[in-house]
Order: sequence, then structure tokens, then C-alpha cells
Amino acid sequence: MRFITTISLVVVFMSSYAQNHPNLILTKKGVQSMRAELGRAPLFDETFQTVKVQVDDEIEQGIDVPVPKDMAGGYTHERHKANFFAMQKAGVLFQITQDVKYAEYIRDMLLAYAEIYPTLGKHPEERSYARGKFFWQCLNDANWLVYTSQAYDCIYDWLDKKTVKRLNEDLFRPYAEYISIENPQFFNRIHNHSTWGNAAVGMIGLVMGDEELVKWALYGLDVKVPGDIVRDNDGGAIRLEGQDEAGFFAQLNHAFSPDGYYTEGPYYQRYAMYPFLIFAQGLTNMEPELEILKYRNGLLIKAVDALINQTNTAGEFFPINDAQKGMSLSSRELVNAVSMAYFYGGNDPQLLSIIKNQGRVPLNDSGLGAAKAIAEGKAKPYQYKSMELTDGANGDEGAIGIIRNGDITLMMKYAKHGMGHGHFDRLGFLLYNGADEVIQDYGSARWVNIDHKDGGGYLKENSSWAKETIAHNTLVIDKDSHFDGNVKDADKTSGTPYYFNAENSQVQIVSAKELNAYPDISMQRTMAVLDIDELENPLIVDLFSAQAPTGTRYDLPMYYMGELMSSNQKFQTNNELAPMGKESGYQHLWLEGQADLNGEMFSMTWFNKKNFYTVTSTFQEGDKALLTRIGANDPNFNLRRDPGLIQRRTGGNTLFASLYETHGMYSYSDEIPINSFTSISGLKVLHQSDKYVIIQFGLKTGEKYQFAFSLVNDSEVAKHTVQIDNSSMTWTGVYDFKKIDK
Amino acid sequence: MRFITTISLVVVFMSSYAQNHPNLILTKKGVQSMRAELGRAPLFDETFQTVKVQVDDEIEQGIDVPVPKDMAGGYTHERHKANFFAMQKAGVLFQITQDVKYAEYIRDMLLAYAEIYPTLGKHPEERSYARGKFFWQCLNDANWLVYTSQAYDCIYDWLDKKTVKRLNEDLFRPYAEYISIENPQFFNRIHNHSTWGNAAVGMIGLVMGDEELVKWALYGLDVKVPGDIVRDNDGGAIRLEGQDEAGFFAQLNHAFSPDGYYTEGPYYQRYAMYPFLIFAQGLTNMEPELEILKYRNGLLIKAVDALINQTNTAGEFFPINDAQKGMSLSSRELVNAVSMAYFYGGNDPQLLSIIKNQGRVPLNDSGLGAAKAIAEGKAKPYQYKSMELTDGANGDEGAIGIIRNGDITLMMKYAKHGMGHGHFDRLGFLLYNGADEVIQDYGSARWVNIDHKDGGGYLKENSSWAKETIAHNTLVIDKDSHFDGNVKDADKTSGTPYYFNAENSQVQIVSAKELNAYPDISMQRTMAVLDIDELENPLIVDLFSAQAPTGTRYDLPMYYMGELMSSNQKFQTNNELAPMGKESGYQHLWLEGQADLNGEMFSMTWFNKKNFYTVTSTFQEGDKALLTRIGANDPNFNLRRDPGLIQRRTGGNTLFASLYETHGMYSYSDEIPINSFTSISGLKVLHQSDKYVIIQFGLKTGEKYQFAFSLVNDSEVAKHTVQIDNSSMTWTGVYDFKKIDK
Repeated sequence: MRFITTISLVVVFMSSYAQNHPNLILTKKGVQSMRAELGRAPLFDETFQTVKVQVDDEIEQGIDVPVPKDMAGGYTHERHKANFFAMQKAGVLFQITQDVKYAEYIRDMLLAYAEIYPTLGKHPEERSYARGKFFWQCLNDANWLVYTSQAYDCIYDWLDKKTVKRLNEDLFRPYAEYISIENPQFFNRIHNHSTWGNAAVGMIGLVMGDEELVKWALYGLDVKVPGDIVRDNDGGAIRLEGQDEAGFFAQLNHAFSPDGYYTEGPYYQRYAMYPFLIFAQGLTNMEPELEILKYRNGLLIKAVDALINQTNTAGEFFPINDAQKGMSLSSRELVNAVSMAYFYGGNDPQLLSIIKNQGRVPLNDSGLGAAKAIAEGKAKPYQYKSMELTDGANGDEGAIGIIRNGDITLMMKYAKHGMGHGHFDRLGFLLYNGADEVIQDYGSARWVNIDHKDGGGYLKENSSWAKETIAHNTLVIDKDSHFDGNVKDADKTSGTPYYFNAENSQVQIVSAKELNAYPDISMQRTMAVLDIDELENPLIVDLFSAQAPTGTRYDLPMYYMGELMSSNQKFQTNNELAPMGKESGYQHLWLEGQADLNGEMFSMTWFNKKNFYTVTSTFQEGDKALLTRIGANDPNFNLRRDPGLIQRRTGGNTLFASLYETHGMYSYSDEIPINSFTSISGLKVLHQSDKYVIIQFGLKTGEKYQFAFSLVNDSEVAKHTVQIDNSSMTWTGVYDFKKIDK
Repeated sequence: MRFITTISLVVVFMSSYAQNHPNLILTKKGVQSMRAELGRAPLFDETFQTVKVQVDDEIEQGIDVPVPKDMAGGYTHERHKANFFAMQKAGVLFQITQDVKYAEYIRDMLLAYAEIYPTLGKHPEERSYARGKFFWQCLNDANWLVYTSQAYDCIYDWLDKKTVKRLNEDLFRPYAEYISIENPQFFNRIHNHSTWGNAAVGMIGLVMGDEELVKWALYGLDVKVPGDIVRDNDGGAIRLEGQDEAGFFAQLNHAFSPDGYYTEGPYYQRYAMYPFLIFAQGLTNMEPELEILKYRNGLLIKAVDALINQTNTAGEFFPINDAQKGMSLSSRELVNAVSMAYFYGGNDPQLLSIIKNQGRVPLNDSGLGAAKAIAEGKAKPYQYKSMELTDGANGDEGAIGIIRNGDITLMMKYAKHGMGHGHFDRLGFLLYNGADEVIQDYGSARWVNIDHKDGGGYLKENSSWAKETIAHNTLVIDKDSHFDGNVKDADKTSGTPYYFNAENSQVQIVSAKELNAYPDISMQRTMAVLDIDELENPLIVDLFSAQAPTGTRYDLPMYYMGELMSSNQKFQTNNELAPMGKESGYQHLWLEGQADLNGEMFSMTWFNKKNFYTVTSTFQEGDKALLTRIGANDPNFNLRRDPGLIQRRTGGNTLFASLYETHGMYSYSDEIPINSFTSISGLKVLHQSDKYVIIQFGLKTGEKYQFAFSLVNDSEVAKHTVQIDNSSMTWTGVYDFKKIDK
């Protein structure tokens, strides 16, 4: 354990604490600037006015610190949550306006909290692995402290010493102890819950000058977690295998990959970023010599960049793993994060366009800095780039591959499982056309904080549907989810990156393998985004190969968004609907129609919002196409009635080859369809084996293209020769893509 | 018939034609202004630039006048359509820029049309009751001529006389004859098809100085329609009962009510407005003494106003009758209409804000006028008002009632059937929250012009689902549609307006009766939009009473938009789905779940986009609530999988009483639900009879309200007394709404 060696460091820096508040997030100097600059940076002024109206309204309504009772969504939960947001904002307003009504509001509320705190036991709701006091889980109690410590810092010097003493002793120290040493199963994990806990305890420690709390926050507790708590409510492990450290530095060491990817995915990263960054900002102000923002090559700023890159063009995060769709760069956490990344990360003018879209800035140095730069016209459009973001603390445990080309965003996932919030979606992918989902990830089955829906927590359909493999755009074998749906097994391994090349913007490729999801079966998916001269938009090639025993039952689902226009196959629709199975997510699918595939290829066109989309696939004899609808076995109407397409095959070693096209447009006010039909006239597999895949496709205009890929040799200089019928094909490098003679 | 008496008038005004082009839509004077003002009115300049790019692009591509072959959506159809749009625009560009390349483009294309026209028989597609030549129906041929005559006018004086003679004799005169005297079943109707036909023939007549064509256009043909054609493809009658006139004046006399309501509904009104207005503009320029825009108290301008008022706040038309959703004030027809209404209808500055949103203007006098006014900052926000729009040529055949209050728009329909495009939806309603549908009308089952979907025409599900009563938010009796689904019977009568009062913005009421939809059954629906001090949004009261024999089976559907949050009832969901019936639209509904209603009332909350909505209903013993999903018996996936709620009851005289609330909000990036639960604590019927309905509802904050309504006496001074239990309630006027003691 590292505790012994780091104690001395702690002692050294703690002694330099200046008892001169505010100095946590706001600083005396920063506050001077904010006062001086009011009226000069519109975005800052607008945020200031908005916040002032909100807080004045709260003050008008009066203080309410109710006895805790409700789950998320219920009154007491939402009231305490509103209280900490209001206090944090009131603190800032007090510093900027010097109007004591804001300080009094915070003081009075804190005293009400100090009054009630010693009387409270655990929150009456018993379902959490770490029950809080004001909230049903310690996590929310930590949220409260992260925000409230900022408010406290703002009025610390204004309060009389007696009140400070009372608050420190009756409220804040015991509060910090409760969420740390009294709940080590919450505080000592490598997990976003603990990040909040660490930041909360560390920040109040910094404000109070309490060295012990800051030490706990940075380096964790040297205590054992009660033996009977091994998993949290989401099934995540309390202690990771091999975990030998805890605390904020441990989170930084483990939570992010060197590329700034967070293993739980962007939805949770967004949530976790706030405590990471706000505590880091406090440490930057109070302990600059720690150089926390430079730790691990500037990891925290990189993480913001990684987060921005995991969005569609509307700034909405890829909804991988447990994620509520629609969460975006507009969230309060990102409002803080992006301005910080701008201010501390080298003033990238592209970030300013994101901040402009956010429409508000944090009321602190970085927010003012960003708002001033925007007022000076420095903003530049944000340019998404293709990138592979590695997963794992050392960057060697899988990755996600993101390919951008024009309006197209393709994301393929071959990362770690993501612990308790992970989905069984190895080699799954998402496809966007600008902000529109073309092929969707379902996201989580949850209405976050909405009390109607089981208190706003995860719904049981999150496990029975949203996490299962069949809910994702990836291969399901023998109707069972990856790793048989076992999180512990899934956490042990990751996908295997094979090839990522986005250097040539006209031929961008991501390819990865999955060797562990099913015993004795290896899978590899290769996706390419190709510029084709004759097509209006990039074409996506999808080559999913599997090496498996004869008789394997494959289901390859694709959750297209929109209304089915037509298919070249004759689907039989069903006059009665039944669930497609009993488990692994199939119990939630209705089978609306099916077709025995016939002819040269399978083709289906759908329409969504303004554009047409076509999938073209090869098939083998006996393959079926199934049209599905989510919603069976859903007694509380928790699932969206979204459509899906499954290609079903029984066989051994095999290849699923498809093309996805974005084409044409149609507007309901013009009613003139443009290019509503596919441009693909043919698609065939020329070769498939465990070493190579080669496909050929033709356009209606007569051109033919050929794409060849080596599944086993990623050298850019290796030579390959493959026999096809009576001729042989030769190329150098991992892939070969070319137009061939008509 | 009027033909004899009007011939003399025609002769008089035809002699005054000035052969001095352009003088149809553009005028020599107007063109001077446009040239002079270029660069001064940004919206005009932007449109000009956009149009120039489009036409230059078309010229670049070269002229193609293919032999007709395809249906809508197919190449030849879309090419000929693109041609007439391009020629019309090129004509304007020629006049503004004086660049002869535009004139040459039109001339060459017209000569190509003149070359091919004499060789053509009827279009090969045989399905229309009036087949065209370039298109599958005369309607589209008329579209072509309406646009092309404008182009021809723009180059008329520039062309050499020989070319003019050739075009007049080989192309335009025979073209005009084909869509008039050779197809009287198309030309001589009271119908939007004929409006296009009349305008087309009249406009080319004005351009060529062909008095006979103009006479036909204005006053119709004195010919008999071939006896075997009595209905069009949509089932609409070729000759209305009692019809004694035809032509443009007859359209004006019959198509609109005195309020400017068009019996087919706003979707078709939008389509019809273009020929009405563009021909009227031509007549205004060439025959100002006709004062066509003042005809019937300025009916055409009133019609534009009526159309604007039949939209949600995004400018999307109420999708009543056959209507594709999303058609809006942004359509090209309305771009022309709204600028004309501004220019010729008194320069209402509120119209300018609509024109601003349209983002383009017609390139003519009215477009320039509007663009200049916008550049001068004259635009004012458009204020929707509550209004009742009567139906029927004399305004005495039913109506629609539109109530606006804040973001709430309620529309109830008790108009005429709307002929071939009508739906069986008497007493149906729609509810919007701003631009969001709260309770939707399905619209038509059609993908207009999209070839994938049966050539872009009406799908068979339009009749089997979209027109049926069960597809609407109104009462279905004994599982059969109104008028047993018979258009002819439905066309004979209309709903009966009973009471419309929007004078007091806090209590707005619409009430109407339907006495013909079902034999021996009278129905009356009364809806009120009420301001309630304690509620954040207006509350909608819905009182649907029916006088019917004992044992009548009632189904009252409601097509809510969004995701079901919760209900106070225990719904049983079905593990297998079956269609709910065999006909009348029931065959397209899956029954997802059902509840036997229990307790004090029925309550269900749903969420859509950003807001929560709750319906609260009373019920009687034995009532059931059914949760439905559209999509059964839909072999081509032509129907949207939208949810519905049906309240089912068996009984005699009865009352369905409901409240609709819009409440709270939730954003996916904030995740903080506000006011997500209903505020209603109770709802009960205090009295129901064929004379009165009285309901009482309570709020969770303790207040109680009472609403009483007289179903038979609409006098504002009549006194009413109703015995309730042991006390009596007395009021004056049609209704009484008040807060009662807690």
C-alpha cells in the first residue's frame, strides 16, 4: 500500500494552507476580475443573471431542510438536491455582488443542516450498498458535500468564528467521516461513486484546513471493507482484482486510460468529470505544486477532450453501456469541464464554439476566461476527428474506434466491459448521420430521477433487456449473451484491437477481435468508411467473421431508426405476435415479420427524419431476416417500441457482409423525394476464410469496387495473394480497396 | 347554368388584354423595382441567389424532356416536375438579370415539349379517373401548365413571332384543351383538382390572349361529363349534388366557407391555395376591374389567414383529414400565399414574422414588398387567437373550433366530412403544447411522392386505418365507424356547432353536436380550456355525452404521444398480441394491455420530449381501459407504431368526463424532473342527463372546482337549476365555472 510513503508529502503541503477564503474554486484575485469584467462578456453576464434569478427565487421561497424520507424523484430527495445547487450558486453571488443576503442564506441553511444532522440515522430507504443520510445513497450525500463545500468556502471568512466551529464540528467533520471511514465500501473503491466521495471529503478538508480529510481524499483509507459487501447495487465489484490503492490519485491512475477514456463510458464519465475537475481545480488553487492537471500527461484535460469526441454533432454522448440518451455537452458537468479545459488546457479556440452552444459558463476564472474569449470573437467551429480511444489504465485493454467522415460518425466498441454499468456488446457499433441516429444503441432502460419509473433508478428491464447482447448491434450466438451475461467474467478481459487506420480520409478502417465472449468461438469485425466518387455520402462496409463449430446459431441484430420503406425480400408479417424467446433479452422482442432470403442479396431501405438509408447484405442458403419490435414482457411500459432487423443463420465458420448507405433526402414541406433508392446493384463475397475476407460490390451506374482485408497480418508491408476462382488477387498491406473494371 | 349570362362580360374584358409581357405575375413596372432594389432587401436577395444557383445548376445539367412513363416518385414524373419548377424560376431570372441564357433555356425546353406533345397519347399508368399526358393524372399536367405559363409570359415578347405561333398552336392550346374539354370530369368539378385545371387554362389563356380559354377557366365548360365517371380515385364525387356551376368563380363560391375554411382541411387547402392565388394575381394584374381579391369580402386573403391559424406554433398544419404530417407554412405554396396576403391584404406586420421563418419570398412584387418591410424591421410576432372557422359555402355546415391559451392549442372538429379526403372523425380533437403533439391525429397513411410506398399515393391503410373513426380521438359506437364508413352519407350532413366562447381567455369553451353519424344516437362534446390559479398550465375539460339505447358499446380512443410513465390502475399486459378486430380499423390495433377500472377515478401520466401530461377520467362500473398499439395487419410496414388508450363502456345514455393536464418538465441533460405528477386529486360527475353535465374536480393543494354546462340552451341569460343530492345548484348562462369551498 502507498499510504506510508505518501504521508510525509501530505504533511508538507498541508502546512502551507492559507486561511484566506475564498480559495477553493473562487479566489480573491479571480473575484476581483469577475467584478471588474461584469458587463463585458455577454455569456458570463447572462449566466450571472440567470443564476441570480434562480437563487433569488430560492431565497424568496425560503429555506426547507426536511427530514430525509424519499427516493430520487421524491420531495425530500429533490429538495436537498436543490438546496446544494442553490447554496453553491449563492456563494458565488455573494462573492461577486457582496450582497450579504446570499451569505445569510447559506449560513442559515447550513445551520439548519447542522441542527438536523446529529439526529439522523441512515436514510430509511434500504436498497443501497452504501446508504446515505440525507439521501438514499452515500453517492448523493457526497454530491451534496462537493457543492456545499464551495458555498462554505465563499462565506468562511464572513462567518463568525463560533459559527465556523459549530459547522465544522457538528456538521462537516462528521458528515465527511460518515461518507469515508464509516462507509469504506463506498469511499475506497475505484469507481465514480468513490471519486465523488474523495472529492467531497477532500474539498471540505481544504476549506476547513483539515489535513486528515485531505489525506484520506487523496490516498484513500487504510481500512478493510466489511466482508459481506462485495458488489454494489449494479453488480459492480467493491474491490477490483489486484487493487492496491484508493483515493483520488488511485482514481486518476485507474479510472481513465492514457487517452482519457473512462471504462464505464461517456455517460458516467460526464458524471464523474465534475468531481475530478472541481477537486482538481481546488487543488490547483490551494496546492499548485501538486500540478494535478499535469498528472499523467495532463490526463484530466485529455479526458475532457475524449468526452467531447464521444458525441454526435448535437453534442449528445454515444449511449454505450448504462446511459440515458440525450445527455450531452450541455450538462452542468460539461459546462464546468469544457471551460476548464479551455482555460487550463491551452486555450483551444474550437472549445469556445462548444461553450457558445452550452449557452452558459461556470461563474469562476475559467468561465470568465472563456466568455471573454468568445466576446472577442475567438471561437472556431469544433472539428471532430477520427480516433481510437484505448481502454484500461495502461491503455492495453481494448478500445473504441471512432470514424468521422462528413456527416457520418461510426463508433465500434471493443473495450472493457465497464463493470457494473457495462453492457454485453463486444464488437457492437453505432452509426450517426450528423445528430440523427441511423443505427442505434438502446442505451439504458431507465428514466433517471423520474419517480414514476421505479424511483428513477435502473429498471429491471435494464438487466433483462438493455444489457443483453441481443439489444446491441453485434453477433449473438446460440441465443445467449456474451459471457453468458456474467459481469465478473466480462470484466476479466477486453476486446482486442486489431487495426485502426484513419490516416487516409477516403478509406478509414477499424477492425477488432473478440476471443472471450463465447467459449471456443473467435469473432472479428472489420468496418470501413469509404469515399466512393459516385455516391453522395460515405459508404460503410461491415464484415463480421466468426470461427465457430458447425451448427452454431447466429443472430446479427441491427436497430435501425425510422420507418421501413421497402425491401427486395418478401416479408411475411405475423397476425399474432409472440415473444421471441424466454431469456437473454429475446423475451422482450416481438417478431413482426420474417423472410427466407432469396435472390442475389438482401436489401432494405428506411427513412428517418430527412434521409433515406439502405442496408445491403449477402446471405447464405437458409438465412432468414427477422423484423422485430421491442416491447414484449414489459408490464410497466418501460421499453421503447423500436424496430430491429436480425439476420439469422445456422452454420460454422462464417462471414456476415453488409453495406450501409445514407442517401437522398425528403422534407415534409417540400414532398419531393431525392435519391430515395439504393445505389448498390450487387454485393458478393469473393473469399472468406480465417485469414482473409474479400468482397465486391457494384453500383447501379455500373462501377464495381473490391475490398480485401487480412484478418491475421496487420503489417502495412506484407504481401498477400488469394486465389479466387481461376485468377489470383495480390495486394500489399492489411487491406486493398479499389475500383475494378466495369 | 350561368354560362349564357356571363359570356358578354368575358368578351368585354378580353378585348382590353395588353400584349405587353410580362404582365401575368411579373409586370414591367415590378421588374424595374426588383432590379433597382437588388441588394437592399436581404430575404429577397437570398432567395434570388438560391434560385439562381438552382437554375444555373439545371441549365448546366442540360434539358431532358423524356417520354412519360413513371408514376410519382419515378424518373419521368420527377423530371417533368423539376422542369416546370426550373422554367418558372428561369423566367423570373431572365426578367431580373436580362441574361438571355435563361430565356434560351425556357425556349429550348418548350420547343422540346412542343416536339413531343403531339406524339403522346394518355400516360401509360391507367389508374387515374383523369389520366394526363406527361403525368399519370391531369392534375399534374395542370401543375405543369400553371408554372410553365408564368415562364412563357416572361419570354413571350423576347421570342420571335414564329416560335410563339408554333408553341401556341402545337403545345399550349392543345395542352389546355386536353385538361379541359377533353377531360371535363377533371375540369368541371368543385374540387382542388379543378382549381388547378381552371388556373392552368386561365393563365395560359391570359398569356396567349386566348379569350376562350379564359372564359372556360372562369366559368367552366358547358359539357356533360361522360356518364361512367362518377367518382375520383379517392371516392370523391365528380359532380356535387345540386352543383349548377363550374370554373374558377364556382370554386371560389363553393370551396371556401365565408371564414376561409376549406372543407378538405388545411393540408389540401395549402395545395389548392397556390392556383387560387397565382391565378388571382394574374387576374389582378391583367383584369383589375374584376377585383378578384375582393370577391366574397376578400375571401382569398381570409383563406390565407384561416390557413395560418390552422397550425401549431411550428407552423405545421393540423393533420385533419388526409394530410401528411409536417406540411407547414414553409411550403412553397405558403411562401407565395403569405407574401401575397401581406402585400394585398393590408400589410399586417405579424405576417412578416411568418415570412421571416419561411426564409424565402416569392420573386415578385409581393415578395419584394415583404422582404423590404422585414429589412425595415417591421416584423411583429404572430399572435394566434382562438377562433371558430365555419364550414360550408354559406358558413352553415359545421365548423372547427380552435382554442389557444399560452402554449396550449386545442382543436375540435365538427365540420363537413371533406369529401374524398375526409376522415370519419366527427367531434374529434387534437391537443398541442406549443409545437409538440400531446394528443395526435394520425394524419393520412401515405408517404407523399415516395415511390417505395405504392408510388407515393394513398396506401390501402389510409382507408382501412387512417380514415376510420377508431383512428381518431372521438367516440366509436358498436365498433363501427361514423356513417358506417360511407363517404356519400357523411358528405350529406355536418356536425352542429352548439357553443363557442373564447371571449373570456380564462374560460374558453367549444361545444358541438353530432346527430347523424350513428342512427338514433346523439352525441355532444364540450371541451373547455380553463385557467386555474394553482396550475402552471391551462387545464382541459372534456365532456363527451351520448344519448343512445341501453347496451350500446362505446370505445373512446385517445392517441397520446410519448412514453407511458404510470397509471393509478393495474394494467395487465398481454404476452401474446392479437388484432383487436377484423374491420373498421380495429384490425390494425394490437391490444398491449388492459385494466378493469377501479377506485375513485382513472389517471395516467405520460412524458413527451420535455413535458409530462396526465389524463384523469371518471368511469362507470364495468368500464375498461385498453392500451393499444397501431401496427397489426400491416404487411408493408405502412403504419407508425403509435400508442393509444381506449376507454370502453357498455351502457345507454352516458357521459365520458376527462381532464387533460400539461405539467412539469424534464431535460435529458439536466435529469431533474419538475412537477412530474398530476395535480388532480379527484374528479367526479355530479350530474349527467340529456340537459346538463356538471363535474367537480379537486387539486392536491385542496381547492375544488365545479363546471356546469347546459347541453340544450345556449342563451347567455337563461337561468338553470339542477338538483344534486339534497341541495340545488343554480346559475345563469350556458356554463358555470367556479372554485367552491374546500
